[in-house]
Amino acid sequence: MAKKPSDEHEQEGGGKIGGKIATREADYPQWYQDVIREAELAEPAKVVKGCMVIKPHGYAIWEKIQRDLDARFKATGHKNAYFPVLIPQSFITKEAEHVEGFAPELAVVTHAGGEKLEEPYVIRPTSETIIGYYFSKWIESYRDLPLLVNQWANVMRWEKRTRMFLRTTEFLWQEGHTAHATHEDGLAEVQRMLGVYGDFAEEVMAMPVIRGEKTASEKFAGALTSMCIEALMQDGKALQAGTSHDLGQNFGRAFDVQFQTEAGALDYVWQTSWGVSTRLIGGLIMTHSDDAGLVLPPRMAPIHAVIVPIFRSEEEHAAVLVAAERIKAALSDLDIAPPRARYRDFIEVVVDDRPIRPGAKFYEWERRGVPVRIELGPKDLAKGQVCVKMRVDTAAGSGKEFVSEAEFIATFTARLATFQAELLRLARERMRAREVTLDTWDEFLATFAGDKSTFAWCHWDGTAETEARIKEETKVTIRCIPLPGQGPDPQPGVCIRSGRPSPRRVLMAKAY
Amino acid sequence: MAKKPSDEHEQEGGGKIGGKIATREADYPQWYQDVIREAELAEPAKVVKGCMVIKPHGYAIWEKIQRDLDARFKATGHKNAYFPVLIPQSFITKEAEHVEGFAPELAVVTHAGGEKLEEPYVIRPTSETIIGYYFSKWIESYRDLPLLVNQWANVMRWEKRTRMFLRTTEFLWQEGHTAHATHEDGLAEVQRMLGVYGDFAEEVMAMPVIRGEKTASEKFAGALTSMCIEALMQDGKALQAGTSHDLGQNFGRAFDVQFQTEAGALDYVWQTSWGVSTRLIGGLIMTHSDDAGLVLPPRMAPIHAVIVPIFRSEEEHAAVLVAAERIKAALSDLDIAPPRARYRDFIEVVVDDRPIRPGAKFYEWERRGVPVRIELGPKDLAKGQVCVKMRVDTAAGSGKEFVSEAEFIATFTARLATFQAELLRLARERMRAREVTLDTWDEFLATFAGDKSTFAWCHWDGTAETEARIKEETKVTIRCIPLPGQGPDPQPGVCIRSGRPSPRRVLMAKAY
Repeated sequence: MAKKPSDEHEQEGGGKIGGKIATREADYPQWYQDVIREAELAEPAKVVKGCMVIKPHGYAIWEKIQRDLDARFKATGHKNAYFPVLIPQSFITKEAEHVEGFAPELAVVTHAGGEKLEEPYVIRPTSETIIGYYFSKWIESYRDLPLLVNQWANVMRWEKRTRMFLRTTEFLWQEGHTAHATHEDGLAEVQRMLGVYGDFAEEVMAMPVIRGEKTASEKFAGALTSMCIEALMQDGKALQAGTSHDLGQNFGRAFDVQFQTEAGALDYVWQTSWGVSTRLIGGLIMTHSDDAGLVLPPRMAPIHAVIVPIFRSEEEHAAVLVAAERIKAALSDLDIAPPRARYRDFIEVVVDDRPIRPGAKFYEWERRGVPVRIELGPKDLAKGQVCVKMRVDTAAGSGKEFVSEAEFIATFTARLATFQAELLRLARERMRAREVTLDTWDEFLATFAGDKSTFAWCHWDGTAETEARIKEETKVTIRCIPLPGQGPDPQPGVCIRSGRPSPRRVLMAKAY
Repeated sequence: MAKKPSDEHEQEGGGKIGGKIATREADYPQWYQDVIREAELAEPAKVVKGCMVIKPHGYAIWEKIQRDLDARFKATGHKNAYFPVLIPQSFITKEAEHVEGFAPELAVVTHAGGEKLEEPYVIRPTSETIIGYYFSKWIESYRDLPLLVNQWANVMRWEKRTRMFLRTTEFLWQEGHTAHATHEDGLAEVQRMLGVYGDFAEEVMAMPVIRGEKTASEKFAGALTSMCIEALMQDGKALQAGTSHDLGQNFGRAFDVQFQTEAGALDYVWQTSWGVSTRLIGGLIMTHSDDAGLVLPPRMAPIHAVIVPIFRSEEEHAAVLVAAERIKAALSDLDIAPPRARYRDFIEVVVDDRPIRPGAKFYEWERRGVPVRIELGPKDLAKGQVCVKMRVDTAAGSGKEFVSEAEFIATFTARLATFQAELLRLARERMRAREVTLDTWDEFLATFAGDKSTFAWCHWDGTAETEARIKEETKVTIRCIPLPGQGPDPQPGVCIRSGRPSPRRVLMAKAY
């Protein structure tokens, strides 16, 4: 690919429109908000406490997440269904830990149709209870098992401190709910769906994750154990990006979900639940974006490429537009990534012909995270070339490149695939560079001083007391006990806080 | 296609499982409920007033509706977004007609996070108010217009009388909301989206509709005018299947959505909204289904074909299964219908290898509305043929047919397309056979006596008084004032009730 600057392609930074983006260095939380605002992903709802409005560019990312994950859920045998958004208040109290975990966060409907309700309803904070109720009606025998359903829905948790995408009172998510004949089958499901989440995070979001098990104090309210994927944000904080719970027979008992076993006995079903939410978009933003704004891996990008016409006369304008539309049509016909069974993604290209300066367009599309920018002027047309600039310099392209139109089109999907792989590689490198292995409490305190955080592999004595003490003293939590193959090889040692024996290191960090 | 019966294919009706389906003749409302239950589309929630649980087979139909319509919305320039499910109660009161229409049906959240709220929220019954609020923040100039957004969401209206899919307190829908610089642009949008709904209903749902305008008393609360598509159910009742509203500047004024015009003046935006809901599934059921259960047009069918293995020995079983999987794979690779831009549907085939009698399987899949049933036994294998039975006898196939495997696969998509067209033709014929033109009040009373209903084209004097009088006396409402090309040619006449002059006939019926 020849590189040859051309005076018709202006330098960066011209025609600034929109607001300022803080640097990550100067003010990370502000940077996060600025990136969201400037990419027009969402805005705080303001008139509804802790809610946000998901704007078209943000919602389009959610649609990408939905369609890819939905195909994975269906490929693993799950079917979508829909359960009521309102849950009788008494349902929430049927599982002891569950009510303790969720009661403080409930939004309650007390009146409807102009009358006070006999029993209030709560807006679902999660649906284990009401789905448990229907499972008890649908399941009679081992022949009805496994029952594998998933729901795409809005849920509400009245959180005190909210942050767009990461924690909002209302959020969008999917919640898988399954029932099995044996604990073994349930555990296999928990692992399978954790695997789906981990694969999706890395393959599609290019977001590396650590897979592990939550400690007893961090698990889902009502679960025996919770598995999770944890991602490292650029400020060193951890983001719990997806969870998969072994509910054991807790909800089966609470909602009397009994079945006749193959041997003819009666038993309670073994249930699981698993979910990811619009929080993933927060993780996506904080994994890849830079001080210039949003960065999107191609498989998460609602728009893959923007073509900016460059011209000085109406004649040139007309000629460039014809070429731009021709290139758009050629790219749009390509398949993106190997299509998986029952899911096909499409390449989206925008020709930005608005009557504003090219520099302003460059600036805007950069902030919106479009992976590929194509500039097209009369000299390019004459040479049969396009001027290409990738959103981030990587092996998929760096700086402005001049490539023949035919070669550009022929290599476009390969370029996207390389860019996707490069973003994952860069994110992995950042994670590895930040991961630390700590052995003394002094090191620990220094590592987590003030607002500082990172992924720290430390020994822990396995007690809730030590865990609580560490959290109280440093705000650091145990993100997970890693699965085999995740983190350092399991070796015994001594707890970083108590000095008592520890079977292996666990992942510690401050978290969103 | 040779037709040759084979003794290995059993007769219908064997191995009945599941409940009874009432005949339409004997008890139409019961038939409707029975079809839903036996096809496992949904069930009444019971513990949540007026709600339903949408079961996997029903939700899969909703997904078909969503994906096809969503591609049409995007192709007409709309983008999806998401707004909060809770609306400050005061918002609802800002548009006078709107509050009058919706206040009696609101569900109200008065407590959240363990505290009483200062201002209650309502669960959205529709989102004109809250979206109007954000439009006022987003729109400054004519350059921001048109603003074209759509939301897929759940909404809640506390209805007294509910019926699965047709009217439930919570339902799923999409609501388009657009803002325009001129009334002309708004009206064009209203017509465009009515066109999308009409095309979708007929092309995809195979449900013929009459397109028209609502009378002032039937329009949306807060609109200047409402356009609608009306479908005729098999009991002669009308179903309002989709609406598209010209909101004029009503919500623009209520939420101060002003913009600078190209001439530099300030004006309120012209808004539209339009929606269809899970109610469409009720319409789909009542358009095509018969006394044997659900009938689905292929473009609405989550499963297009089921293959039932027929065998007497384990050897035969193994051989038949290999062939069944081969046929499934070949069919699954086919494209269904011409793929429209940015949307691809997939063919879904089930090989039903459950250890139950073939007759029981036939019965079950028939009730679930699967368009094509394939029986496959060792004799078929020997002859290289399959035994095909369509869900309904039409030009796409009637009775059991024996077709070579190669021909069956090669003609499969054509067979589906013919079946799709045939279901629309049959529904159109039923509609035409039922449509009547009435000129005297005696005829009218006889036509609508008791529970009777049909599509009746009658003259009306254009007054709300006469409309109300007809409704009070007969429960018949004016479904719409038809658009050009819909219904009989517009000719003046005299009102069927008042005898006063009428410019043209309107569509009257009892309605769901």
